[in-house]
Amino acid sequence: MRAFNFSPGPAALPEAVLEQARAEMLDYQGRGLSVMEMSHRSAEFMAIAETAEADLRALLDIGDDHHVLFLHGGASMQFAAVPMNLCAAGDVVDYIHTGSWGTKAIAEARRLANVHIAASSEAENFTRVPSPTEWRLTAGAAYCHITANETIGGVQFHDFPATGAPLVADMSSDLLSRPLDMGRFGLVYAGAQKNLGPAGLGVVVVRKDLVGRARTQTPRVLDYAIQAEHGSMFNTPPTFPWYIAGLVFRWAREQGGVLAMQRAVERKAAKLYTAIDESDFYHSPVRIADRSLMNVPFTLAEPRLDGAFLAGAEARRILNIRGHRSVGGMRASLYNAVSEKAVDALVAYMGDFEAERG
Amino acid sequence: MRAFNFSPGPAALPEAVLEQARAEMLDYQGRGLSVMEMSHRSAEFMAIAETAEADLRALLDIGDDHHVLFLHGGASMQFAAVPMNLCAAGDVVDYIHTGSWGTKAIAEARRLANVHIAASSEAENFTRVPSPTEWRLTAGAAYCHITANETIGGVQFHDFPATGAPLVADMSSDLLSRPLDMGRFGLVYAGAQKNLGPAGLGVVVVRKDLVGRARTQTPRVLDYAIQAEHGSMFNTPPTFPWYIAGLVFRWAREQGGVLAMQRAVERKAAKLYTAIDESDFYHSPVRIADRSLMNVPFTLAEPRLDGAFLAGAEARRILNIRGHRSVGGMRASLYNAVSEKAVDALVAYMGDFEAERG
Repeated sequence: MRAFNFSPGPAALPEAVLEQARAEMLDYQGRGLSVMEMSHRSAEFMAIAETAEADLRALLDIGDDHHVLFLHGGASMQFAAVPMNLCAAGDVVDYIHTGSWGTKAIAEARRLANVHIAASSEAENFTRVPSPTEWRLTAGAAYCHITANETIGGVQFHDFPATGAPLVADMSSDLLSRPLDMGRFGLVYAGAQKNLGPAGLGVVVVRKDLVGRARTQTPRVLDYAIQAEHGSMFNTPPTFPWYIAGLVFRWAREQGGVLAMQRAVERKAAKLYTAIDESDFYHSPVRIADRSLMNVPFTLAEPRLDGAFLAGAEARRILNIRGHRSVGGMRASLYNAVSEKAVDALVAYMGDFEAERG
Repeated sequence: MRAFNFSPGPAALPEAVLEQARAEMLDYQGRGLSVMEMSHRSAEFMAIAETAEADLRALLDIGDDHHVLFLHGGASMQFAAVPMNLCAAGDVVDYIHTGSWGTKAIAEARRLANVHIAASSEAENFTRVPSPTEWRLTAGAAYCHITANETIGGVQFHDFPATGAPLVADMSSDLLSRPLDMGRFGLVYAGAQKNLGPAGLGVVVVRKDLVGRARTQTPRVLDYAIQAEHGSMFNTPPTFPWYIAGLVFRWAREQGGVLAMQRAVERKAAKLYTAIDESDFYHSPVRIADRSLMNVPFTLAEPRLDGAFLAGAEARRILNIRGHRSVGGMRASLYNAVSEKAVDALVAYMGDFEAERG
């Protein structure tokens, strides 16, 4: 029996995707091979790769102005690759700091560029997104970096301001959950293991005019220009994660695309936030306007009940709702593959638990 | 029906491994989740990761002197990570050049260190391994790098000389095919997609006293000291490829370990090389003493028959024997998961083809 899986990542995948992967595991389309056993340059895998890219482009309306790259590693790899590709060592780069992932991106960028924190909500414990009117952007910065959704704090950008410098967004946890105007972004990157597929794959969407300036010591597998020139096959790519991501893209299109994803996410999040807000027992620390639709952290009125809450959830096959060790409490992640039924089960359980122990 | 798959990589996996992956695809051990859907920090995945490391250590008799790391990317990622971790920008590093993979490793290292080619068989078209008596090693070199097996040229080191500097070996295509005396190596690395598992995973075995000197601009996910400190989980690792590699390690132990792998590989290679050498129609260009047991390139007496040979093989479900585009001809890869039955089918076909068209 499948569990209700609220894991923050690696996270739930659509059951239809897993079923197809299972069916094709020993014999992909009568070829007598697993996708894992194919050369990345075989006709079969090239078709998988090209279809995946075409589906992602269709989902996000990505035009000819942007390369789409499928690379090794996740967001943490890109924390280094972004400055290595987009700026020289002394260049100023602006970062908007809204949580733990931003902290990591900033730490990595500091080793490679002159980082300016243009806005931060650290003093408020990352419970909100600073309004663009508070941002102190640097004239001539090489780029401006945001973390579109912070999985630990549960804050999300719901709008993207126009910036003079190219806007770079870590969308690891909310890519494919809503339509995007890609024209606003110089670069968008995402580790796959939240909304796109398995861990070990990073997707980079980058404006073509920004590539070609990687500093000389950039590992060539991380050089966007080289990978773009080789269709992300300068070296052997992570073929199986790419294949699974392709199945996820196809599934998302069949569901109605990112608009349908967005509607489903909004429905799920509304149910959970309503349950939290209408209760005196559960609490969300995040400013309402900036709440994440992807990751919903909440606390119980009495932290001593956390263990009992988790054990009771486990008994109903509601898994992976423990909050991040750095903040405690609970967190439910509502990525695309998490069904509304799972959210209903969680909300029902929260009500029962409160009635019994609250 | 499963094909006879001689792919050079990504390559054949043991059928038992694929069957287990299929059986567990939607529900790992009753947990109601796929391995792809689990947090890398969950108890279930931590057990998978630790078992995989323990099995690899047991297979290769790796002791406490070496870290074992499971990293994003394959050998090409390590072409950069090795010099970033083991030497400073001006340091001399020795490379032994025996083929195409060496060429790539050298090109990457040249951007990061002062590369000295201590020996090369390039003038002989990479048809042999230069004897250690020909090597011109640099006193005080930071390390000496070899490519233990060249998949395109089909040459392999069958002995490893003692070197003053730490010996670094790219074993992407022959790790787990034979016992190793790990005490001779400072560092061994391998992309997984030949003998270990799916693409997207790199395994690094590195002597503990060599880590901790990464240059400051090394992406932290590629810093061996940082990854060692975090059990290869400084960031989310490629969890599914790691899981599959663990199943391969377990399978290899059940088969009798690397000694059994070696015996099987020797049997398979002997059959194929004998078929080539006893024929006037097939030809191997490689010096006999340095022939690879993993990758067997061979040519037909008349290159105009290549197309017919490939088509006839395909009709018998003998797949992926076309030689690399840079050298032409044929190549059969005999990694651990390629069965003796597959080799028998290939040899029988070669005989039939020669009788008919030779």
